[in-house]
Amino acid sequence: MQLGLIGLGRMGGNMRDRLRAAGQEVVGYDHHKETTDVASLDELVDKLAAPRVVWTMVPAGQITEKTIDELAELLSEGDIIIDGGNSKFTDDAPRAERLKAKGINYLDVGVSGGIWGNTNGYALMVGGDAEIVAHCQPIFDALKPAGQFGFAHAGPHGAGHYSKMVHNGIEYGLMHAYAEGYEILEASELVQNVPAVIKSWREGSVVKSWLLDLLDRALDEDPQLANLKGYAEDTGEGRWTVDEAVRLAVPANVIAASLFARFQSRQEDSPAMKAVAALRNQFGGHAVKR
Amino acid sequence: MQLGLIGLGRMGGNMRDRLRAAGQEVVGYDHHKETTDVASLDELVDKLAAPRVVWTMVPAGQITEKTIDELAELLSEGDIIIDGGNSKFTDDAPRAERLKAKGINYLDVGVSGGIWGNTNGYALMVGGDAEIVAHCQPIFDALKPAGQFGFAHAGPHGAGHYSKMVHNGIEYGLMHAYAEGYEILEASELVQNVPAVIKSWREGSVVKSWLLDLLDRALDEDPQLANLKGYAEDTGEGRWTVDEAVRLAVPANVIAASLFARFQSRQEDSPAMKAVAALRNQFGGHAVKR
Amino acid sequence: MQLGLIGLGRMGGNMRDRLRAAGQEVVGYDHHKETTDVASLDELVDKLAAPRVVWTMVPAGQITEKTIDELAELLSEGDIIIDGGNSKFTDDAPRAERLKAKGINYLDVGVSGGIWGNTNGYALMVGGDAEIVAHCQPIFDALKPAGQFGFAHAGPHGAGHYSKMVHNGIEYGLMHAYAEGYEILEASELVQNVPAVIKSWREGSVVKSWLLDLLDRALDEDPQLANLKGYAEDTGEGRWTVDEAVRLAVPANVIAASLFARFQSRQEDSPAMKAVAALRNQFGGHAVKR
Amino acid sequence: MQLGLIGLGRMGGNMRDRLRAAGQEVVGYDHHKETTDVASLDELVDKLAAPRVVWTMVPAGQITEKTIDELAELLSEGDIIIDGGNSKFTDDAPRAERLKAKGINYLDVGVSGGIWGNTNGYALMVGGDAEIVAHCQPIFDALKPAGQFGFAHAGPHGAGHYSKMVHNGIEYGLMHAYAEGYEILEASELVQNVPAVIKSWREGSVVKSWLLDLLDRALDEDPQLANLKGYAEDTGEGRWTVDEAVRLAVPANVIAASLFARFQSRQEDSPAMKAVAALRNQFGGHAVKR
Repeated sequence: MQLGLIGLGRMGGNMRDRLRAAGQEVVGYDHHKETTDVASLDELVDKLAAPRVVWTMVPAGQITEKTIDELAELLSEGDIIIDGGNSKFTDDAPRAERLKAKGINYLDVGVSGGIWGNTNGYALMVGGDAEIVAHCQPIFDALKPAGQFGFAHAGPHGAGHYSKMVHNGIEYGLMHAYAEGYEILEASELVQNVPAVIKSWREGSVVKSWLLDLLDRALDEDPQLANLKGYAEDTGEGRWTVDEAVRLAVPANVIAASLFARFQSRQEDSPAMKAVAALRNQFGGHAVKR
Repeated sequence: MQLGLIGLGRMGGNMRDRLRAAGQEVVGYDHHKETTDVASLDELVDKLAAPRVVWTMVPAGQITEKTIDELAELLSEGDIIIDGGNSKFTDDAPRAERLKAKGINYLDVGVSGGIWGNTNGYALMVGGDAEIVAHCQPIFDALKPAGQFGFAHAGPHGAGHYSKMVHNGIEYGLMHAYAEGYEILEASELVQNVPAVIKSWREGSVVKSWLLDLLDRALDEDPQLANLKGYAEDTGEGRWTVDEAVRLAVPANVIAASLFARFQSRQEDSPAMKAVAALRNQFGGHAVKR
Repeated sequence: MQLGLIGLGRMGGNMRDRLRAAGQEVVGYDHHKETTDVASLDELVDKLAAPRVVWTMVPAGQITEKTIDELAELLSEGDIIIDGGNSKFTDDAPRAERLKAKGINYLDVGVSGGIWGNTNGYALMVGGDAEIVAHCQPIFDALKPAGQFGFAHAGPHGAGHYSKMVHNGIEYGLMHAYAEGYEILEASELVQNVPAVIKSWREGSVVKSWLLDLLDRALDEDPQLANLKGYAEDTGEGRWTVDEAVRLAVPANVIAASLFARFQSRQEDSPAMKAVAALRNQFGGHAVKR
Repeated sequence: MQLGLIGLGRMGGNMRDRLRAAGQEVVGYDHHKETTDVASLDELVDKLAAPRVVWTMVPAGQITEKTIDELAELLSEGDIIIDGGNSKFTDDAPRAERLKAKGINYLDVGVSGGIWGNTNGYALMVGGDAEIVAHCQPIFDALKPAGQFGFAHAGPHGAGHYSKMVHNGIEYGLMHAYAEGYEILEASELVQNVPAVIKSWREGSVVKSWLLDLLDRALDEDPQLANLKGYAEDTGEGRWTVDEAVRLAVPANVIAASLFARFQSRQEDSPAMKAVAALRNQFGGHAVKR
């Protein structure tokens, strides 16, 4: 099957490789000349036979919006745009509506797997109409891992990105659960070989997971994580997950705490803790650090 | 190798099976007549050649303490007691000391794997002296999963139970992260097939794990979890993990929130929320539920 | 000074009383015939001399929006609309813009004080242009408590409602801190007279506050809070505060936990805890409640 | 009434002043020569007529324990020791038992009020036998604020320190609620005058409290809290409160989060966040800070 693929960065580049390895025909476009297959979106569209399927894999937000708008100008009725980036789910229904007005079909796909997807396959969560999903199934089958898992048609437009958003919210929580446990082990006077303990959990234990495998891998490279700072960005999905928990009245202390810990990790000093320090000084005469 | 095994319940019974399947000689004792191999602790000790290795797999706390005290009366200098139950790590060093006074060696072992351990192997975290660990290695090797993972000598007496405690604290956090994400998906207007989304994460995704596999399994059996209540006991390790975080000044919002959610799940009504309701009524005249 | 006041419910009715007691001239309008001073908005506007000041004190959201739109049709250039309801701060700047197009000035005011405001005065946080604030100062002075506190010009349009939103977010946190402490005292085997302990904190202690006074008052009426359920609604500001914390990357575990506890208090059963129970059953064979 | 008072630091010194101002006779002892009234504990005991009442106001833990042990050697049957320090409540019953064996009575008193107690009075929570409490009432009356509040006989030995412990746990939560709100206001683009907003809440608002007054006071001195670090110690009671919540199965996310935030404020780098950063790097190739 033919696929136009826009955005050949860390994710898109690997996806092209995996698709090609599976025998799919991919025409990739990227603004980096070294990696692109074609010189322009026009050329990309020209190279595809109708009905075309074009997958965008560019940064969420304005770049995605702009890319899809440009594409829509070039595509024809019956073509399909798939957004596999980390767009906010609320963008999908209006976008689908806009494209539908031009006869263009739309799918939103949440893609998980990171830099390992090329090898392991990508977990795909898809939103949109069933027949359009069915039409693109060969692409999904090539990208997803072998076997029965790694793919879901989650619901209508937006359901794919929504599922990926929650996936990432969970991911924050999982990572932080391991992280807290790791810190307690590190602080303990009793446990002398923390990396060995982590390793012992990789098989047979209730907490075994791919993330745990990766933590072990990181500790193999740097047994005390001495070469990095306790600093983490967040990329949108964690925040949206908490916003959704708030909107839907779902208690979400774990995911929220994981998100807040990232915020905290990026602060040079905490205004809140300044207020606490000021209060302790005021009522108790407790010393403050200056 | 010979092993005396005391306690043949859900965990111990399976462990006996796995050990025997691996060619180890197990003499099991349990107060249930149907499952026990011997009629008494005396008989168990009699059947083992010195230096004996006896593994206790009975409920943590007084039963374990009493069992080990009785055993210590029957064993001889040079014998080894291994406690594989969920004892609190602070019990181990004093216990080892008491046993040492009689010339009996001691190991504490954290055992993870639940009812699947018989098939998958058990993750083992061991505390105690290296030579005693080495002596018992054939037992550990039979219990642990095949391959390089699933076993660690974590440190001195207590380090095994400590590692298992933190393991369980992490387990609480992991489970609750999935649980919150599950609830958000369930509450969402967009995601129509929650079990399918969970299934899609089992391969290729960043959140893939054994716990996720089990969540999928539970949803296969009961797609809306309609046949059970949102009620969960806690068995000690979660509480001790939070106590340790507090003692060691480790921020642990995720694990603590997971534990508190279990407490909450067992309350018929919340005294704290009564106080909140009373306050809202007092200052704002807001209606209360009676 | 003359004031038109729309909405004479629990808050607005008391405010009219306080304003009149302070010698201000209030024309009140409400759709309840027993309380209204005039039969219609037209009549209200007619009774006021230009430049008119009209204060809306109606439920936030569509009712406020509709009321202000209707008012704007009736008012003249140079008149002033003040929204004292719990509108979301993001409504204010667009609303001010719309009104400005008609030459009508706008202020947003966050009003705290609940049913006690009539007696104690209301804390007022104002957003808008300084000269408009100055023009309305006699109204603010009549509503606010005597003395130097209870009034702030917080910033431009929206800053009043924003400040009130954060005020309420803090209120959630304060209430829940007392509530947790109350629950611990109630659960303790040692403390025999919980209401007496609460009472002891009302003077001299670091935790003395008006909310604590009210908790004591509630316990005077019902020493074990036996006549109410642990159930609490939330009215918007708490959610917006958490949304803002998320948007601004401010760690806010306390306020978020207080909000989530309210969500929790309204759930008949917790889908998240069902997932936890299902997982425990799957890996450990732990019994579930049905 | 006569009182021996041991420990004349920030708290004890002020208490002596307040007691004397109320006409009580205080013999104070401190190891600082400038402040002590007597040269030794012996001299202190000599100066008091039986039955003696001696109040210890020294650092909790070993110093308190040692002081009380020394005192017990010097006192006679029928004398009374009052510990007003921040002892852990679990110390009280054994201590009372030990003293009772010598015929010495014991009361534990939680004292709140900080450096303001001299002026405002101290809130006192007392544990012990009613007749001993009654005997000491003149001392309590002199220390407590005027009026009906500020004193409670909370229960048997330990109940006084227990109540004070929970009081401090609540205090952590209250402070952090204000602190989070403060940080959101500071981060907001809309609110231009944060100290003015805080000031507006001091009267008429639902969040008015003594702590808020102190926050305002701190902002008067340093409007942006620029001269202090966001760093806060914790002194035991917060940790014990969380331990008690865990022991009693009371959900306490707010108090726990407040405590964890203090831990966090003292970390140069967060091992947990290092683990998160390492994981993000492993699965997504996300850049880490070094």
